[in-house]
Amino acid sequence: MEKIKNDIFLRALKGETLERPPVWMMRQAGRYLPDFMKLKAKYSFFERAENPELATEITVMPIHQVGVDAAILFSDILVIPKAMGCPVDIITGIGPVLPEPITSMADVDKLLHPTIEESLSHVIKSVHLTKEALNNDVPLIGFAGSPWTILCYMVQGEGSKTFDKAKQFCFEQPEAAKKLLDKITNLTIEYLQAKIDAGVNAVQVFDSWGGMLSPADYAEFSLPYMERITKSVHGVPVILFAKGAHYALPQLAASGASALGLDWTVTPEYARSLVGNDITLQGNFDPSRLLSPIPEIQKMVKEMIDGFGTTKYIANLGHGILPNIPVDHAKAFVDAVKNYSK
Amino acid sequence: MEKIKNDIFLRALKGETLERPPVWMMRQAGRYLPDFMKLKAKYSFFERAENPELATEITVMPIHQVGVDAAILFSDILVIPKAMGCPVDIITGIGPVLPEPITSMADVDKLLHPTIEESLSHVIKSVHLTKEALNNDVPLIGFAGSPWTILCYMVQGEGSKTFDKAKQFCFEQPEAAKKLLDKITNLTIEYLQAKIDAGVNAVQVFDSWGGMLSPADYAEFSLPYMERITKSVHGVPVILFAKGAHYALPQLAASGASALGLDWTVTPEYARSLVGNDITLQGNFDPSRLLSPIPEIQKMVKEMIDGFGTTKYIANLGHGILPNIPVDHAKAFVDAVKNYSK
Repeated sequence: MEKIKNDIFLRALKGETLERPPVWMMRQAGRYLPDFMKLKAKYSFFERAENPELATEITVMPIHQVGVDAAILFSDILVIPKAMGCPVDIITGIGPVLPEPITSMADVDKLLHPTIEESLSHVIKSVHLTKEALNNDVPLIGFAGSPWTILCYMVQGEGSKTFDKAKQFCFEQPEAAKKLLDKITNLTIEYLQAKIDAGVNAVQVFDSWGGMLSPADYAEFSLPYMERITKSVHGVPVILFAKGAHYALPQLAASGASALGLDWTVTPEYARSLVGNDITLQGNFDPSRLLSPIPEIQKMVKEMIDGFGTTKYIANLGHGILPNIPVDHAKAFVDAVKNYSK
Repeated sequence: MEKIKNDIFLRALKGETLERPPVWMMRQAGRYLPDFMKLKAKYSFFERAENPELATEITVMPIHQVGVDAAILFSDILVIPKAMGCPVDIITGIGPVLPEPITSMADVDKLLHPTIEESLSHVIKSVHLTKEALNNDVPLIGFAGSPWTILCYMVQGEGSKTFDKAKQFCFEQPEAAKKLLDKITNLTIEYLQAKIDAGVNAVQVFDSWGGMLSPADYAEFSLPYMERITKSVHGVPVILFAKGAHYALPQLAASGASALGLDWTVTPEYARSLVGNDITLQGNFDPSRLLSPIPEIQKMVKEMIDGFGTTKYIANLGHGILPNIPVDHAKAFVDAVKNYSK
């Protein structure tokens, strides 16, 4: 049985009493790192994500360069639609584009359900290689998109401020939408379990567009699928992050997850009033606030940890780190957490 | 002194006991109306907004065609940056574009502070003409953007999912940002007061991008300016709508406003727990939900009013109506409110 040398992240997920919280950053292996940009200049998105050697190199980068307490496997939530037979392009300056969006039950019926070996073996290979490269220094997190968030892209065909087409599909064709959500859920469970079996130490489900839905619609089109994933995967802690869906925190807390991610619109007091004191919370520094001068970042990090406490809390951003963040500001954020003392 | 024939909207703002709530829809004079699209095909955005005859025709349209209980003057929040000397284009398919965005204190110092007569007399003329056209059938609402939301456009130069450049400006150059917010606030107060003096019966301030900010940053970059506007204008009720900024509802309720707008992520119970029972609430049907079949719209409207009650409540959407909503669905929404009974 492996023993992780720096296991503070896993201990926070177990609820152990800690002197300072662990810290990692969503999109920590990303465009703010000059070494990442060198690889980005040479290889397309899917070349980077689907080549296990490159994915490993990128995953490990922020451990050495920024000093975070956990690694998160470099990949993308859109590997799932791609595996189901929906072409996905990642276009620089635009983001993901799915040129054949889902519009009908017939489109849903045509989707594939491949085995992980057939379609996603490169991800499993990346887990093995990354675990070797990490040498048990820190834990490795695997992730997937929530079924609702994956549906958003599969139906809208691209990023959106409102995901109006995705919502239209759900509200006009709820049966087709739920069949699609079921299919995504089934493959996602197998996918996350395969990553767990290959060695990831925790998994996070990103419901990036949860907050587009009303509480009633969240309960219909997102929550049940998040719950099913959480209850179905086994062997490691599950973290659920539903950006914007503060109203769903009580239900997400009752799902069996070990931790809930928070965006920066939620105060520690409000979050705890919704979820109680048993579950670990993760977040929620505004990524744009990493543009502040370093002394201000240090002050705000201290205030954040004062608010959440050092136990049952994982310091993180409230969404992914932005490409224009100076590396020394990212490092100042991480160091401020590691040097925290009341 | 004028007497408005259908004054249920104003009575809800006063907190009078009512059998059913009044109803209007944000962007009710908009692209879902075929007659609006005919004018849009003939005239550019600013031709429509700056020609008082056209603005009047557009403002009155939804009163007759959909049956709402209040009119809202056809205009745009970006008339303010335009009056301050920032060019604004509205480009079909893209939205607003401000080709000379603010990047420094020097840019802020160069901004104009024109008199309303110099720069916005067409809006005042529109108020006069619209009041005549409405013939006191229903009240007329005037509006402005919140200083933070106007800053978002003036700095970002266009719409955005994150308004990252606007936030960067605030966090890197807070003094310049606050000077800009002050200038916008000063002109906005004069602008709203001029509309009130010309005859509008209520004003609404739209903080469309409030929810991009953390609670602490909202308290620094948006709330004080909303409060100053609310306290400075006089003569009619003020409605504040801060989309996404649920955490600021207690402070907004204490600002002296008569009503607060809500987006669809906030339940009636949560809103009332934050603001108490004295203030009127307005909202919060998900605009995308108007794509549901009409019987489902009727059911959801009833549930919404059951939740908010018929007194101290104004039925509305949680954001602007979408261009792809069928007119009969919009009308079904309005009729469902008007026919409400427990």
